[in-house]
Amino acid sequence: MLNLLCSERGRAELRQAGVPRRWPGRVALLGLPEAGRADAALITRDVVGASTDDVLTPETAAFYEALLAAPGLRWVHTYASGTDRRIYAALRARGVRVTNSPGANAEAVAQTALAGFLYFSRQLHRAREQQLQQRWEPLRHDEVRALRHLEAVIVGWGAVGRRLGACLSMLGVRCRVLRHSGEPIEEGWPTDTYARFRQWVGEVDWVFFVCPLSPATESLFNIDTLSALDAGRPLGVVNVARGRVVDAEALLAAHARGLVRHAYLDTFRAEPLPADDPLWRCRDFLLSPHMAGTSDGNRAEVIDRFIGLLVRELDGEA
Amino acid sequence: MLNLLCSERGRAELRQAGVPRRWPGRVALLGLPEAGRADAALITRDVVGASTDDVLTPETAAFYEALLAAPGLRWVHTYASGTDRRIYAALRARGVRVTNSPGANAEAVAQTALAGFLYFSRQLHRAREQQLQQRWEPLRHDEVRALRHLEAVIVGWGAVGRRLGACLSMLGVRCRVLRHSGEPIEEGWPTDTYARFRQWVGEVDWVFFVCPLSPATESLFNIDTLSALDAGRPLGVVNVARGRVVDAEALLAAHARGLVRHAYLDTFRAEPLPADDPLWRCRDFLLSPHMAGTSDGNRAEVIDRFIGLLVRELDGEA
Repeated sequence: MLNLLCSERGRAELRQAGVPRRWPGRVALLGLPEAGRADAALITRDVVGASTDDVLTPETAAFYEALLAAPGLRWVHTYASGTDRRIYAALRARGVRVTNSPGANAEAVAQTALAGFLYFSRQLHRAREQQLQQRWEPLRHDEVRALRHLEAVIVGWGAVGRRLGACLSMLGVRCRVLRHSGEPIEEGWPTDTYARFRQWVGEVDWVFFVCPLSPATESLFNIDTLSALDAGRPLGVVNVARGRVVDAEALLAAHARGLVRHAYLDTFRAEPLPADDPLWRCRDFLLSPHMAGTSDGNRAEVIDRFIGLLVRELDGEA
Repeated sequence: MLNLLCSERGRAELRQAGVPRRWPGRVALLGLPEAGRADAALITRDVVGASTDDVLTPETAAFYEALLAAPGLRWVHTYASGTDRRIYAALRARGVRVTNSPGANAEAVAQTALAGFLYFSRQLHRAREQQLQQRWEPLRHDEVRALRHLEAVIVGWGAVGRRLGACLSMLGVRCRVLRHSGEPIEEGWPTDTYARFRQWVGEVDWVFFVCPLSPATESLFNIDTLSALDAGRPLGVVNVARGRVVDAEALLAAHARGLVRHAYLDTFRAEPLPADDPLWRCRDFLLSPHMAGTSDGNRAEVIDRFIGLLVRELDGEA
């Protein structure tokens, strides 16, 4: 018998998907009060709710405490793509196997990155500004660069990067790719390892961060990056990866010197972003509260993946 | 000898493209002071500048007056896609042949329509609102509909509609198409004539107006449309066609009743939109000053098309 701890919502979704009916007598769904008997747990998105890695809601904290206190817990599956949050490190440190759902929200993240890019490149930020002031001021053609004249670096070639690359390329943007392996890609675009970042960032119009956080990507955009940039070709930045990939002070300094024109940032070193953080006030930047992957389409994807792993788990047991 | 009236900028662009050098002694480029001798004229985008159909800048007015006063004028080519502005009607009434550049800005218009759609559907409007208030409030997954659950009607199947359809479809949005002929399209999506609008608008999540203004499309969205809509599935609207395709009072009434949630509007019945127009103040709508097609990539496209026509004109003469 596999005793599986889930949120109320998680239990409802699993039941709807035929668990535990499919394995009579072999899977039991537990709620928090029975968490002490858990062998495994499913962390659905609702468990995390509005919690960030830094600030947990009481509901999230209670669930995490139950996980850490369950003596027989050996497997945790999470809805998340990345498992860099502290809870996963703590679970791993206790010998718990952590599985994740990379790519379950890839579609939403790639679409949001695209939305942030188009918001600035099609000048909707200026339109909104004019609207709020009830001002009609058409732009000159020279002020708006055709997308097919733009070049971008996609940093990270996982599920998000691939989808984003397909969209950008359809819009006429020429792409280069940085990835851990540096291996060539099917699309035939220039590809290299993250070590090439500092050179390439000075040769393109936009950079999209869609990579995992790792020693190779932490602070990839930093104060040294500024010397590679050119105010004659100011950069646009999109970060839907992790806050720690981009050093925010360096980004603001680059903006102040005209080296970076626009940035769309969905992730931050500290979340929630503190109310007094200077990023909030930069009108040339668009900020969102770590929501690039938010979508009502992810849930079914996560449950499907979890069930796939569950099949293997129970077959292994049988 | 073809005497061709152009703006200073138009002359520079034609010279750069090899006109009149290519036809020695057969084409002369004229400026405004010599407009009385013009046989033909090229209206480049800079001639229109910030003028709308309702309000002309002095520079535009002077150029138009020169056109109307030139006794031998027989051909005018314009950068514009549509020739529904008054000047073209006036020229045609004088027997002048008017040629246009449909599709020269199609890429930019389709991309801007997409940008407006993603701005709302990926919730960037709420992100910006939060940013301006330095507020961190993540959205719940249920609040953000996956794009692949959405269905859209594309009204108009010219160069803009086709490009837009390709982009929406790549993002997972299911599309239907309304077009003048109602003929089936290669993509195999449901297709019908504009007469089907009132039914289909009640069955989808978004409607994109990318059609020419014609008797069949004028006020397509009108007060009768409201009875087809459903507050349980509020509509999003994008209008990058012409202001008169959408009755703004009906749109505001639909919004007030919860039948329309968001609209991105780039064109208006009167342009500039009067400062006291209630549209400005609707925060659920995004307005832009007729700039969807604005791009530094259009100019070369227009010159290429004009030269194509010029070749035929001069071959015909020879």
